[in-house]
Amino acid sequence: MNSITLKNPFDMHLHLREGEILKAVLPFSAQSFSGGVIMPNLKTPVTTSQLAQSYREEIASLAPDFLALMTIYVTDFLDKESLQDLSEVGIKILKLYPKGATTNSDSGVSSILNPNLLEILKVAQDLGMILSIHGESDGFSMDREYEFLKVFENLAKRFPKLHIVLEHMSDHRSIKVLENFENITATLTYHHITMDLDSLLGKNLNPHYFCKPILKTPYDKEALLDLALNAHKKVSFGSDSAPHLISNKYSQNAFGGIFSAPNLLPRLVELFERHNKLENLQAFVSDNAITNYKIKVKKDKFITLKKSPSKIPDSIPVLDSKIIPLFGGSDLMWQELV
Amino acid sequence: MNSITLKNPFDMHLHLREGEILKAVLPFSAQSFSGGVIMPNLKTPVTTSQLAQSYREEIASLAPDFLALMTIYVTDFLDKESLQDLSEVGIKILKLYPKGATTNSDSGVSSILNPNLLEILKVAQDLGMILSIHGESDGFSMDREYEFLKVFENLAKRFPKLHIVLEHMSDHRSIKVLENFENITATLTYHHITMDLDSLLGKNLNPHYFCKPILKTPYDKEALLDLALNAHKKVSFGSDSAPHLISNKYSQNAFGGIFSAPNLLPRLVELFERHNKLENLQAFVSDNAITNYKIKVKKDKFITLKKSPSKIPDSIPVLDSKIIPLFGGSDLMWQELV
Repeated sequence: MNSITLKNPFDMHLHLREGEILKAVLPFSAQSFSGGVIMPNLKTPVTTSQLAQSYREEIASLAPDFLALMTIYVTDFLDKESLQDLSEVGIKILKLYPKGATTNSDSGVSSILNPNLLEILKVAQDLGMILSIHGESDGFSMDREYEFLKVFENLAKRFPKLHIVLEHMSDHRSIKVLENFENITATLTYHHITMDLDSLLGKNLNPHYFCKPILKTPYDKEALLDLALNAHKKVSFGSDSAPHLISNKYSQNAFGGIFSAPNLLPRLVELFERHNKLENLQAFVSDNAITNYKIKVKKDKFITLKKSPSKIPDSIPVLDSKIIPLFGGSDLMWQELV
Repeated sequence: MNSITLKNPFDMHLHLREGEILKAVLPFSAQSFSGGVIMPNLKTPVTTSQLAQSYREEIASLAPDFLALMTIYVTDFLDKESLQDLSEVGIKILKLYPKGATTNSDSGVSSILNPNLLEILKVAQDLGMILSIHGESDGFSMDREYEFLKVFENLAKRFPKLHIVLEHMSDHRSIKVLENFENITATLTYHHITMDLDSLLGKNLNPHYFCKPILKTPYDKEALLDLALNAHKKVSFGSDSAPHLISNKYSQNAFGGIFSAPNLLPRLVELFERHNKLENLQAFVSDNAITNYKIKVKKDKFITLKKSPSKIPDSIPVLDSKIIPLFGGSDLMWQELV
């Protein structure tokens, strides 16, 4: 096949940051995707309807056609009264980070099964909201997601009508939880289905491949890739694209996050084509998400890709510095027609 | 206890580099240790008696009392005739790297069980030489040492009189090989007995904790620490201190190697004291090595350490740049009296 058209691709896990970085990175997502789920871990976390709406406006002013599905950062101080307000302005995703699990997660909840949070989740369930979780324990990195599965199980049982999302699934042991609970779905990144820990540190150490959850074993990668290639009904694509300036990557405290937004669709097409699964890409990057998250698309967007060589940019200039995209400078076999 | 005296400490695995870096880092080892096993992976690998002797002279000119136990980098081109010459000039350790396993290892042997190398090892055995191995497969990082164990077993059986050293043991699964083969001993680094993969990447990513073999699980760390604290007869301390300029650490191709040489003895005393095993430190940092490697100490060296607060330097200036020592800037409870 030399050309493929995708309808309404969605990136169901996306970090856009704010200010100058937002301006530099948003065009990559807005060009390729109809919309995406926008993560709330800004320097001032997006914890209220007001902050989320003003962030949504900032995004809309730069990319009016991009459907920004806003999320609210769940803190110990969230109160259930505000959930109704959120629903009314179309914000229906609660994002839950355990404290300290990733970039700007220090405001995360200290205990997930505390009574206050459980009450909030009850209200969220009643309002048809979605609970999106960065599910990691504070244990050993390679086992953090696995150790957190019992929290997913607990919540899924307590709130059987609440749609719970296991974000950026990274461990093959999570798949059974996805299978066992009707109300749990998952997002998969490009990097967790194509790379493993050795991409980060197998030869030299490459901080651009450092992310949370950490890349796991080759076995995990293959199991997750299999879910993606078969467009398992309960998984959607969510890039977890997370830009950082190089000063925060070349450091003794390098930040986690892979900036994968540039050229995501060409890479996904190449991946699915290599595995003879191109027919499943539409479901993986769009249909599953639209169904599971009940997204209302106002105006269809069609992205046509042609088999034609191009290159991923080496770096993206921003703020007198730069951000290095995943596989910056390397070749692509496919290209989006714009 | 407020003071402890160690007799003839040896660092049985040490990277000193060459030129300006050698000058900057050697004083730390020469101050604390009677001598050490000097690794041959220079930019031009130390593959011949001539290169080893000239490297030994360079070290001696800077630290005349430091007993540099030289090693020869085993390549596909080493011939058995040269082993006799090496023995005659007191060079008796062959260092074997699988190709590409670590810094400057591109000259390493491409196949370990090739007939040429086996002949060389036969001669080495007859001459009473020591075979020191960086034992890692080219598989998944966390399993590389484990996958390589079969090569140790194979060589230990073929050459039952050859002393084989499993360098920088990092995986608890290697312990059984140490137990099963009379002629295998091991070295342990400070970092593999006190840190695990999460030290490198559990929160932010710290390239100063990036080394080969990669730091493993907490379980591996504890098992190896146990060997060290009990001064298992077949293990010796070998720091694997491996300095790199910061430009080679803050990069998208960061080099592996932890520069642990500054303040190694104070840290070891603190570690053994914390575990109530100070009585075993002498064996771990000296006696076991002297016995197993049959080291002839010409003049005894005594190092006295006192319980008195000090600090690890933040960085070591060299070549208009710097090298960051392990735990640079942090506090020490013990201090060497000089």
